[in-house]
Amino acid sequence: MSIKGPLNGIIVVDMSRVLAGPFTAMVLSDLGARVIKVEAPGKGDDSRSFPPIKNGVSAYFSSVNRGKESIALNLKDDKDKGILLKILEKADVLVENFRPGVMERLGLGWEVLKEKYPKLIYAASSGFGHTGPYSKRAAYDMVVQAMGGIMSITGHPGESPIRIGTSIGDLTAALYAVIGIVAALYDRIATGKGCKIDISMLDCQVAFLENAIARYLLSGTIPKPLGGVHPSICPFGVFKTADSYVIIVAGNDKLFETMANVIGMPELLTDERYKSNPDRCAHVWELKADMERGLAKKTTEEWLQILEKAGIPFAPINDIKAVVEDPQINERNMIVETEDPDAGVVKMAGNPIKMSSYDDPHVRVRAPHLDEHRKSIIDEFCR
Amino acid sequence: MSIKGPLNGIIVVDMSRVLAGPFTAMVLSDLGARVIKVEAPGKGDDSRSFPPIKNGVSAYFSSVNRGKESIALNLKDDKDKGILLKILEKADVLVENFRPGVMERLGLGWEVLKEKYPKLIYAASSGFGHTGPYSKRAAYDMVVQAMGGIMSITGHPGESPIRIGTSIGDLTAALYAVIGIVAALYDRIATGKGCKIDISMLDCQVAFLENAIARYLLSGTIPKPLGGVHPSICPFGVFKTADSYVIIVAGNDKLFETMANVIGMPELLTDERYKSNPDRCAHVWELKADMERGLAKKTTEEWLQILEKAGIPFAPINDIKAVVEDPQINERNMIVETEDPDAGVVKMAGNPIKMSSYDDPHVRVRAPHLDEHRKSIIDEFCR
Repeated sequence: MSIKGPLNGIIVVDMSRVLAGPFTAMVLSDLGARVIKVEAPGKGDDSRSFPPIKNGVSAYFSSVNRGKESIALNLKDDKDKGILLKILEKADVLVENFRPGVMERLGLGWEVLKEKYPKLIYAASSGFGHTGPYSKRAAYDMVVQAMGGIMSITGHPGESPIRIGTSIGDLTAALYAVIGIVAALYDRIATGKGCKIDISMLDCQVAFLENAIARYLLSGTIPKPLGGVHPSICPFGVFKTADSYVIIVAGNDKLFETMANVIGMPELLTDERYKSNPDRCAHVWELKADMERGLAKKTTEEWLQILEKAGIPFAPINDIKAVVEDPQINERNMIVETEDPDAGVVKMAGNPIKMSSYDDPHVRVRAPHLDEHRKSIIDEFCR
Repeated sequence: MSIKGPLNGIIVVDMSRVLAGPFTAMVLSDLGARVIKVEAPGKGDDSRSFPPIKNGVSAYFSSVNRGKESIALNLKDDKDKGILLKILEKADVLVENFRPGVMERLGLGWEVLKEKYPKLIYAASSGFGHTGPYSKRAAYDMVVQAMGGIMSITGHPGESPIRIGTSIGDLTAALYAVIGIVAALYDRIATGKGCKIDISMLDCQVAFLENAIARYLLSGTIPKPLGGVHPSICPFGVFKTADSYVIIVAGNDKLFETMANVIGMPELLTDERYKSNPDRCAHVWELKADMERGLAKKTTEEWLQILEKAGIPFAPINDIKAVVEDPQINERNMIVETEDPDAGVVKMAGNPIKMSSYDDPHVRVRAPHLDEHRKSIIDEFCR
């Protein structure tokens, strides 16, 4: 049932819920691993009940659990726990995102598992990691977005803070976990040994601050939100048009000249305030206002065509409908399909890792129904 | 010079500039790979001149190129190109982020390289990928943020669009590239063959939309920005205090009851509008206004202590200074140090992949000066 990929033959036990852990396991599945999702009996992964739901199938759950098998196990029941232990005998990777301490209370902590399964790679994702003073605190995506600094540098200056619209706290942690897991699989070929990978969502937010830390520590200035403009290239940002907005990037003098002419504002070129990129950066808000007087004369759609013809880097601000319909995104197979017997066709984001050595199928194996693979899994692992 | 890690012995040639490619190679270096950065003679990687600069050293450049070696090569010069080809004979991975077509014009396209070096893993990152109608267009982080949909779901409702404060367009692409590279290294052990990995920054933005695509396609409703609140849990978001803001998460009824009492607003508990989570979600802005009347009586610092004691999930909105000084972040070794002979100590974000099998050193090898390792590299690869 796994798709062809570099991780064919690898068995992943996914004991995780909602987002960070399930997304980790889904990327492994996209790379060809076989993923067995272990869920709580009755309701399963919490995200199975997240709206919108069609004929009992959650779009949220479907989009982060495609390609997996499901078995429902009560880990406080000895018989069910025995089934898990049998699966772990043949598994290569365990993914979990419980609060630190939960696996230990279930008798499934790394210290126990590494003795029984020395080749097992144990990947834990949690809000703050398994060490440190906040380790036991509850965390959610927005908690780590807030504590990790990104909210302090996103938004319009002077306005109340906003959440980044997708759960980058979970998703970044998921990708770092995948990197750790695949590197550990590579390492295991030489050492014969597994390891524990301890991913903290907060750590990953810090790693994603780009240069903000080095910049602050070298300059002493605390970075602030900049709305829709760039700190050191100008013009580079969001501009208002007759009907909506457009992104224009024209930082060097040649692009600036072309841009000023095509938007019908040649007077910008003789303005002392806009002579060079540093001059323009020093007058960023005035330049924006001036450009928007010219841009107000046409719609975004009209400007996009003019800017493309003139060779000026540009972008529309796509909503999700425009993303799903975009020709480039579709040509790259980034909207894939699954077919569910109850919900019908469910479309979702594809796999962005395009490798020349493997196909990138458009139709993917759907997310499993709760406990759907119980019989085949028990037949295979428990005889 | 490499640190100990699962990729010890792997040689990476980093021909990339600025962010997506350099960040990819830095993560590989953090995993123990040896990274040789090939730069243009004279000025090197463009980011060497990005401010702030201390004694000739850019904080930006330093923070995404730690642990690498540098050699300056003019790839249009036959002698220098010969040096690159000699290095590639022993290399495992090539990382580049030129605009599609540039490597081909240099005679270094994948079709040529795979014949000469069948084991080479060639990882390209570009704005739109190497295929599709937009492939040749220039892209910048903000271009793919705009086209990939995230800007359409971030910000306060009705306000002008904002850029996410870090370059997630580049960084997400970098992590997906690392996953592809490490998976290809794993695969190569069995197949003996390299491959090309074609990463598009736009594709990676689509993969990071979380459930927005499936949600839109199942419900037909285009997701909108939600400011600082959560779409389906309430209260969950940003709240104003006497002096700044605080994040409070109290979605279930028990947490809501505790929260209402500790903020001195027990009247919320008898209000029909706030009886259950769905009720609260339907009156999210009224509840926010009511809670903020209570929260206005104390400072954020006071509320943090009260909320922690009461067991209610909370967070401060840290600025970069607070991040750098945070005890959890420091305990997790997420602020590491390098020592540059010219700039002195440069601190930066550490490696969030904490593996039980390897150390996580606090002092890291600094970013190289331009062409610093020319002699040792030529001595090693060209004799």
